[in-house]
Amino acid sequence: MLPPNAPSNKKKIINDPLYGFISIPDDLIFDVMNHPYLQRLRRIMQLGLSNLVYPGAQHTRYTHVLGAMHLMTLAIGVLRRKGQEISAEEERAARLAILLHDIGHGPFSHALEYDIVHGISHEEISGMFIDRLTKIFGEDLRRAQLIFSNQYSKPFLHQLVSSQLDMDRMDYLNRDSFYSGVSEGIIGTDRLIEMLSVHEGQLVLEEKAIYSVEKFIVARRLMYWQVYLHKTVVAAEYMLIHALRRAKYLAQQRTRLFASPALELFLANDVTKEHFLNDPKYLDAFAQLDDHDIWGAIKVWQYHEDQVLSLLCSSIIHRNLFKIEIATHPFSPDRIALEKEFVKAQMGFSSADVDFMVYHDLLVNKAYTQGKQSIMLLNKYGELVDLPRASDNLNISALAKPVEKYFLAYPTYH
Amino acid sequence: MLPPNAPSNKKKIINDPLYGFISIPDDLIFDVMNHPYLQRLRRIMQLGLSNLVYPGAQHTRYTHVLGAMHLMTLAIGVLRRKGQEISAEEERAARLAILLHDIGHGPFSHALEYDIVHGISHEEISGMFIDRLTKIFGEDLRRAQLIFSNQYSKPFLHQLVSSQLDMDRMDYLNRDSFYSGVSEGIIGTDRLIEMLSVHEGQLVLEEKAIYSVEKFIVARRLMYWQVYLHKTVVAAEYMLIHALRRAKYLAQQRTRLFASPALELFLANDVTKEHFLNDPKYLDAFAQLDDHDIWGAIKVWQYHEDQVLSLLCSSIIHRNLFKIEIATHPFSPDRIALEKEFVKAQMGFSSADVDFMVYHDLLVNKAYTQGKQSIMLLNKYGELVDLPRASDNLNISALAKPVEKYFLAYPTYH
Amino acid sequence: MLPPNAPSNKKKIINDPLYGFISIPDDLIFDVMNHPYLQRLRRIMQLGLSNLVYPGAQHTRYTHVLGAMHLMTLAIGVLRRKGQEISAEEERAARLAILLHDIGHGPFSHALEYDIVHGISHEEISGMFIDRLTKIFGEDLRRAQLIFSNQYSKPFLHQLVSSQLDMDRMDYLNRDSFYSGVSEGIIGTDRLIEMLSVHEGQLVLEEKAIYSVEKFIVARRLMYWQVYLHKTVVAAEYMLIHALRRAKYLAQQRTRLFASPALELFLANDVTKEHFLNDPKYLDAFAQLDDHDIWGAIKVWQYHEDQVLSLLCSSIIHRNLFKIEIATHPFSPDRIALEKEFVKAQMGFSSADVDFMVYHDLLVNKAYTQGKQSIMLLNKYGELVDLPRASDNLNISALAKPVEKYFLAYPTYH
Amino acid sequence: MLPPNAPSNKKKIINDPLYGFISIPDDLIFDVMNHPYLQRLRRIMQLGLSNLVYPGAQHTRYTHVLGAMHLMTLAIGVLRRKGQEISAEEERAARLAILLHDIGHGPFSHALEYDIVHGISHEEISGMFIDRLTKIFGEDLRRAQLIFSNQYSKPFLHQLVSSQLDMDRMDYLNRDSFYSGVSEGIIGTDRLIEMLSVHEGQLVLEEKAIYSVEKFIVARRLMYWQVYLHKTVVAAEYMLIHALRRAKYLAQQRTRLFASPALELFLANDVTKEHFLNDPKYLDAFAQLDDHDIWGAIKVWQYHEDQVLSLLCSSIIHRNLFKIEIATHPFSPDRIALEKEFVKAQMGFSSADVDFMVYHDLLVNKAYTQGKQSIMLLNKYGELVDLPRASDNLNISALAKPVEKYFLAYPTYH
Repeated sequence: MLPPNAPSNKKKIINDPLYGFISIPDDLIFDVMNHPYLQRLRRIMQLGLSNLVYPGAQHTRYTHVLGAMHLMTLAIGVLRRKGQEISAEEERAARLAILLHDIGHGPFSHALEYDIVHGISHEEISGMFIDRLTKIFGEDLRRAQLIFSNQYSKPFLHQLVSSQLDMDRMDYLNRDSFYSGVSEGIIGTDRLIEMLSVHEGQLVLEEKAIYSVEKFIVARRLMYWQVYLHKTVVAAEYMLIHALRRAKYLAQQRTRLFASPALELFLANDVTKEHFLNDPKYLDAFAQLDDHDIWGAIKVWQYHEDQVLSLLCSSIIHRNLFKIEIATHPFSPDRIALEKEFVKAQMGFSSADVDFMVYHDLLVNKAYTQGKQSIMLLNKYGELVDLPRASDNLNISALAKPVEKYFLAYPTYH
Repeated sequence: MLPPNAPSNKKKIINDPLYGFISIPDDLIFDVMNHPYLQRLRRIMQLGLSNLVYPGAQHTRYTHVLGAMHLMTLAIGVLRRKGQEISAEEERAARLAILLHDIGHGPFSHALEYDIVHGISHEEISGMFIDRLTKIFGEDLRRAQLIFSNQYSKPFLHQLVSSQLDMDRMDYLNRDSFYSGVSEGIIGTDRLIEMLSVHEGQLVLEEKAIYSVEKFIVARRLMYWQVYLHKTVVAAEYMLIHALRRAKYLAQQRTRLFASPALELFLANDVTKEHFLNDPKYLDAFAQLDDHDIWGAIKVWQYHEDQVLSLLCSSIIHRNLFKIEIATHPFSPDRIALEKEFVKAQMGFSSADVDFMVYHDLLVNKAYTQGKQSIMLLNKYGELVDLPRASDNLNISALAKPVEKYFLAYPTYH
Repeated sequence: MLPPNAPSNKKKIINDPLYGFISIPDDLIFDVMNHPYLQRLRRIMQLGLSNLVYPGAQHTRYTHVLGAMHLMTLAIGVLRRKGQEISAEEERAARLAILLHDIGHGPFSHALEYDIVHGISHEEISGMFIDRLTKIFGEDLRRAQLIFSNQYSKPFLHQLVSSQLDMDRMDYLNRDSFYSGVSEGIIGTDRLIEMLSVHEGQLVLEEKAIYSVEKFIVARRLMYWQVYLHKTVVAAEYMLIHALRRAKYLAQQRTRLFASPALELFLANDVTKEHFLNDPKYLDAFAQLDDHDIWGAIKVWQYHEDQVLSLLCSSIIHRNLFKIEIATHPFSPDRIALEKEFVKAQMGFSSADVDFMVYHDLLVNKAYTQGKQSIMLLNKYGELVDLPRASDNLNISALAKPVEKYFLAYPTYH
Repeated sequence: MLPPNAPSNKKKIINDPLYGFISIPDDLIFDVMNHPYLQRLRRIMQLGLSNLVYPGAQHTRYTHVLGAMHLMTLAIGVLRRKGQEISAEEERAARLAILLHDIGHGPFSHALEYDIVHGISHEEISGMFIDRLTKIFGEDLRRAQLIFSNQYSKPFLHQLVSSQLDMDRMDYLNRDSFYSGVSEGIIGTDRLIEMLSVHEGQLVLEEKAIYSVEKFIVARRLMYWQVYLHKTVVAAEYMLIHALRRAKYLAQQRTRLFASPALELFLANDVTKEHFLNDPKYLDAFAQLDDHDIWGAIKVWQYHEDQVLSLLCSSIIHRNLFKIEIATHPFSPDRIALEKEFVKAQMGFSSADVDFMVYHDLLVNKAYTQGKQSIMLLNKYGELVDLPRASDNLNISALAKPVEKYFLAYPTYH
């Protein structure tokens, strides 16, 4: 294994539309980036179906993790400049931790996380991939995993990877805003990173960052409701979820379905954590899955003889998305039953089929989380203040209250 | 007088770093822009002394009014597209109203508004200038003035010029952010303007604009405390105010002072509204005043024999700004007296002199104003909702409570 | 059919990272955009495999045609402002012409244009699609096609769609620069469009545009060599071409290959123009093809038993791209033979197999084309000047000479 | 004197609209920046009268030197990363050299350099200021001066300060483009700096930079003709030059003229290099001069009884700029005489007066200089190639030929 920062001939500079140049700091990181597990993220869109509403939002998880790693490098530079000791090994491990943090995501993770597999989260799958990579790349990855799982002796390194101020969300808010064209979501990462500090081992912000943090949280809330939970995107995601559920249901009834070999495995079986633990072929197959498996199947399924499946798939492909209504209170059982009756009557589906076509659920977003994970501000006397108490008036506390919205979605051509 | 939009050979395109090209829509507007009263704004910085903290913030009031006029053109286009009738004459008048809205500002208006003249506001001086221009350019300017003073039959035109959502603040927030480099202040003007609408003659926003408005208000608050009321800027402004007061005091005691003829008139006399009303020479002289008169004087005064004046002026020029402390409660009379005693003792000034060098005051900003001027949102049922009630949780209400900060500033070289 | 610009309730605004908001000008255009033929372009990347070098370059042909249509709207506005008469019907037709100009592209068109089908260009396929759409949407599309094929009475409308200064290349240069992060390719479209004019029915530029045009041409050349013909991209494209050729060769020998039904048709047959003319199923199948068919196949083929196919596919997927050398003169037959011998000897392939793995060819780019298509400048006396003659010195002429580069590419693991 | 990079409490971060944050690397540099000689540059516009055409172009020489220092920091980082040894002292000196390189500029330097003083260049005045600063700040400034005057042992450090690829022009091209809104002038400084290298002590570029350099040179040429030598700007500058010459002529005839004490000294005397060498008061006075002295005088002089002076000054203030014609050949003596006769006849001036109002001259710009200062490219074999030879075709050679334009300017109200 090469020591960090050893000289090398490998291409170390990547163009990024947001940050200009991203330097790839050392050869080990370069090699991890080129491993198929990471290259797979080139074929998974960061925002899934959001491009149906924001057609520019075609950026991949791969560019996101590169961007987050770049911000990590900047943050470590700032903390060192303020006197925090961070060794070259710790720096490498922190970069690896953020580079690998999303490696367990499947295609359309936001929508499909709990439908492709059951009872296992993307974080657990990330852990399994990192275990395998550790066997190849050695000790540095173990240290990365300790940071990732908050078992490393310096908690601020974990907080740079995962907290309310981590490099992950700084990059994704900026990147999602940039590519979607919702420019109001753009945040001042330079300024926020410049004001990071470490106090008794914890990541904190200098007090003067207060207005920037407030704006960061408001921007994040805006992105949730304007992009991530945009009602048209939600409708499309629920259609995709139900197309996949229908395909699984058909596959498990031995109906023939076009699918890549990897996708076939997950359709034919209800794959759970047990499967992953007991047979490596499940993780191998998961490592093959990306957006192309899903789109490739959906495209062919629009001509399937099962009318539920073909309706869902052709509606997605042709962007004939279901109507979706939003309300502050739950839709009544009567209203939902009424919509189902309509669909049955007009389109000739059975009651069981209709459950694949009328959806209702609750959307929740909390812009800021209070409590143990509070963002802490460091004032000029070296005292810590919790963000809501530091903030003028009540804004931040207000932002910490979850916003809840109920929806009801259904086909319109009845 | 030419009709609006008549063909012409005049140069009608101006490069603007923010908006790209600004078209000058017609010859009358072109001619008004070239009148010396408006050209004077080329020599008045929008942000006064803020460039002592943000050296890029050198933009002029002239570029601001051009930018605001450009946004007015966009806004009128949007409202027309939504079915609102606006005649060519009304469009021209609305553009003129915003073009002229700042014409009464003097140099360093934020700091010096009440020290160069007394008992007359910049709005009243604007009115006097517009009266004179109306005699030259005719009826169109009268209509502009009706819009400006909210006496025109379509209140939304006035609200585009002056309200919590006017084109004035949309441009200045964007422009001040852009030039200062405080990029967090940048707002999505395109999106906000796109969501403007008119309901029963009043300017409103479509309901889906809610997160954008929230972010607009938070950005505005950030700009206040980060730029406009930045403590170092406040210190510099109070030094400038007191330098001018001292110069006036000296001038009225017949002490010889270097000054341009126009500035001399305002130093030698306590010019009030009466002067303006009774003798045109005061408005003539005001029309000559710009930043160069002030800086030109300050530069020479740093060598004046009056020690108070020379100390203040040389400190401004050399950027040796006074120390300033900020607190949430007023500074006690004892503390203030103590600072004054120090200055007296260490620097050898009299009690009267010291009042020109130790300052304390209250800074207030309210990000959002509730009540009659509330921003109104139009929902899909065509009903109006007040912004705070439409907003999830309590944020907007919180932003409507004024933030107050007390300061104490004094020289440090004692 | 609705008249142009009739009122409508359809969503008419799309966020674009480059231009902010793109307005969809009328309902007919809105409906054409939503037709599956155009929606297919959402699933075809503009730059094919360039994202292997520039990972941000994931933008689709769909966003490109929207952007080009937006620039068309701006250009028509400028020409009208300068007195050129353009009717509402002509405007609609010109927008449709540019919206549809790329509709015949297949996946990875730059690489695969002549391998998926034979003897038929993407322009001819576009024409066939437009014919079908004309049957659905009527007369307006016929007019668009006349403009597209330069048979309309106003040649400048065609030149806005297709010439050395067309809205197509203005958008793609800007968009490709923006997404790839090669910011030097960004051009001043606003300024260039602002200086467009019409002289005796032809599209020209005002003379003062000369430096902007020069810069536009230099930017275009830079984009060719830095992005479009980047040597790593070329290597990847030739690998993809040969993977597809191999798959076709295998398919036509009745070897079983995973493929979507649409791709299967083009693998199993050498589809030519005749096929398209004689049987609608070929155009139907072509309308199904997009990047997912290709990636979906490549991913599965990396495990195919044919070693040539599996090597090529797994190398593309894992980004183990072949080594590529560039020279100003052709590589000698001896050198090429030598590389082939190496591959045979080291990797155990036959001579026939090796032709799928060692590539040599010529890359040519001419930044500017002189002659009939010259960019013409209009001077202040109303005279036309050919660009090279107007340009100071010899630059433009120099740019008109083609640059030629030879390459040799081969696997490195031997 | 503090060692470089010693810890300090001084504010070390400045917001810059172009680069985000500029770090002030050490306390010595911080202190030099705060010296009145450098603070004076806050009151001198980088582009003089260009804001009469590009109203956004209000940026100061102060922000330019900060920006250039920032780019120097980036360039040194790149060269070190590529193995070039640069000590902390050398880095500090190189930063100081570029920080101070413009310190000898007076107000409107481009126009007035040879009219405020005679027979002494701004570089010589810079040298005198640096000599004084060296007495205050010590050895580091001496080293900076050695770099500045190319007497230091590492020529590449000088070339970073002054050459065809120096940080000075990289910053000014970018900054002038940004503020003027002529976005086509923006260059890829990140990329160019990333490709810098040192070969045998000389600053070179990696060969792959070739298209970027070509574009850099074309952008520079565009900025010259579009901004720096824009014909309206040239007209205004010649008017200013002649206003000052007229004022000098009057002052030396003992006519009373409003002026600041510093300007008065330069009006009343023909100050030459001898004066600077023999009496420190001339450098002291020069250190007081900035744009305010010139504008302050021009504003008052528009009411002067000398008709030539008042006409020139009021025309500048009111932006009634003279008509200017451009030609590729010199204007004939007859044509010039004719214009002078017109002015005399129509406006009643004497022959001597008219020479202050009719101007003709030659404008020259060479985008690239061949010969000893050629930009050298380093190919992959470690060989140097001169840029024109490396460039495809003839472009660069073409750019090396000077472009010459003749102008004739005269008042239009006759």
